[in-house]
Amino acid sequence: MPTINVQLFEGRTQEQKRAFVKAITEVTVQTLGATAESVDIIIHECKRENWATAGKLWSDQE
Amino acid sequence: MPTINVQLFEGRTQEQKRAFVKAITEVTVQTLGATAESVDIIIHECKRENWATAGKLWSDQE
Amino acid sequence: MPTINVQLFEGRTQEQKRAFVKAITEVTVQTLGATAESVDIIIHECKRENWATAGKLWSDQE
Amino acid sequence: MPTINVQLFEGRTQEQKRAFVKAITEVTVQTLGATAESVDIIIHECKRENWATAGKLWSDQE
Amino acid sequence: MPTINVQLFEGRTQEQKRAFVKAITEVTVQTLGATAESVDIIIHECKRENWATAGKLWSDQE
Amino acid sequence: MPTINVQLFEGRTQEQKRAFVKAITEVTVQTLGATAESVDIIIHECKRENWATAGKLWSDQE
Repeated sequence: MPTINVQLFEGRTQEQKRAFVKAITEVTVQTLGATAESVDIIIHECKRENWATAGKLWSDQE
Repeated sequence: MPTINVQLFEGRTQEQKRAFVKAITEVTVQTLGATAESVDIIIHECKRENWATAGKLWSDQE
Repeated sequence: MPTINVQLFEGRTQEQKRAFVKAITEVTVQTLGATAESVDIIIHECKRENWATAGKLWSDQE
Repeated sequence: MPTINVQLFEGRTQEQKRAFVKAITEVTVQTLGATAESVDIIIHECKRENWATAGKLWSDQE
Repeated sequence: MPTINVQLFEGRTQEQKRAFVKAITEVTVQTLGATAESVDIIIHECKRENWATAGKLWSDQE
Repeated sequence: MPTINVQLFEGRTQEQKRAFVKAITEVTVQTLGATAESVDIIIHECKRENWATAGKLWSDQE
């Protein structure tokens, strides 16, 4: 703990994910006083056809 | 907000998802008084081999 | 299944929740072809001090 | 209810999942007094490149 | 990992929770080959007025 | 999107939460290229009696 679940669109590179989890962990340690070892981050990559805003799938948004 | 996460079996068509998110958003606006723009829906498609009821995977149910 | 998890701000009345789950279930049955009995809805009421958009807690938004 | 969501690394066999959901359901019935029919288990298989501990993706851990 | 999130109705005793997490962890270790230290379980206690099945809140079910 | 759900023990101050969501949003924008407006963060405060590691509730850990 903390356990951080992140939902985002698919398409990020491995390098972006690497930078993201490193930075998220650092600011969690700094602002909450947790140890780095206690921080888990799980990334969920979502297809645009499975996410809707305002009643419209993102695969249908222009 | 509201953010709505939906877990269901895989196999729905794009047309079904499209109708589903449109209708869910409409009734959310009507019953909760939210704006359509504030409604996010994320669909999670699950395999039958990853969902169990009563101790039995759905891929094993007859 | 489907299992629907809804995150929203606290403050809805019991009557609003009642109308919401009834309507959500109906449109799920209509658009996805599920049986009403298979639809579970779990409501998560969040405090404004625990939800942030654009880096700012909603309890701090004006 | 109860509804149990399990996040783990991908790579378990169908046989392991079968044994897992059977055993989880049994102990849930025994310790919480729920009926087996009311226990739903959803397994989420995560890639090592999407899970980080201590700021490092598991695909990068040695 | 594994990380196990459990949603159930509120009302279980501390003793029931204690037995539950012990048993869940044991069968997870036995069936999946994980170490006990890697198993996290998070319990979410839900009010009956926030869970609906078949379009009806459990606080309204007789 | 991205939508970030954070599970942690209860007990953080409003000031800590404020700093946390500001920093998380900033590094998400920097590393993933998202706009700040698209970043939602939802904090879930868990009681120690509802979180277990290695089969033991944290309220029972010494």
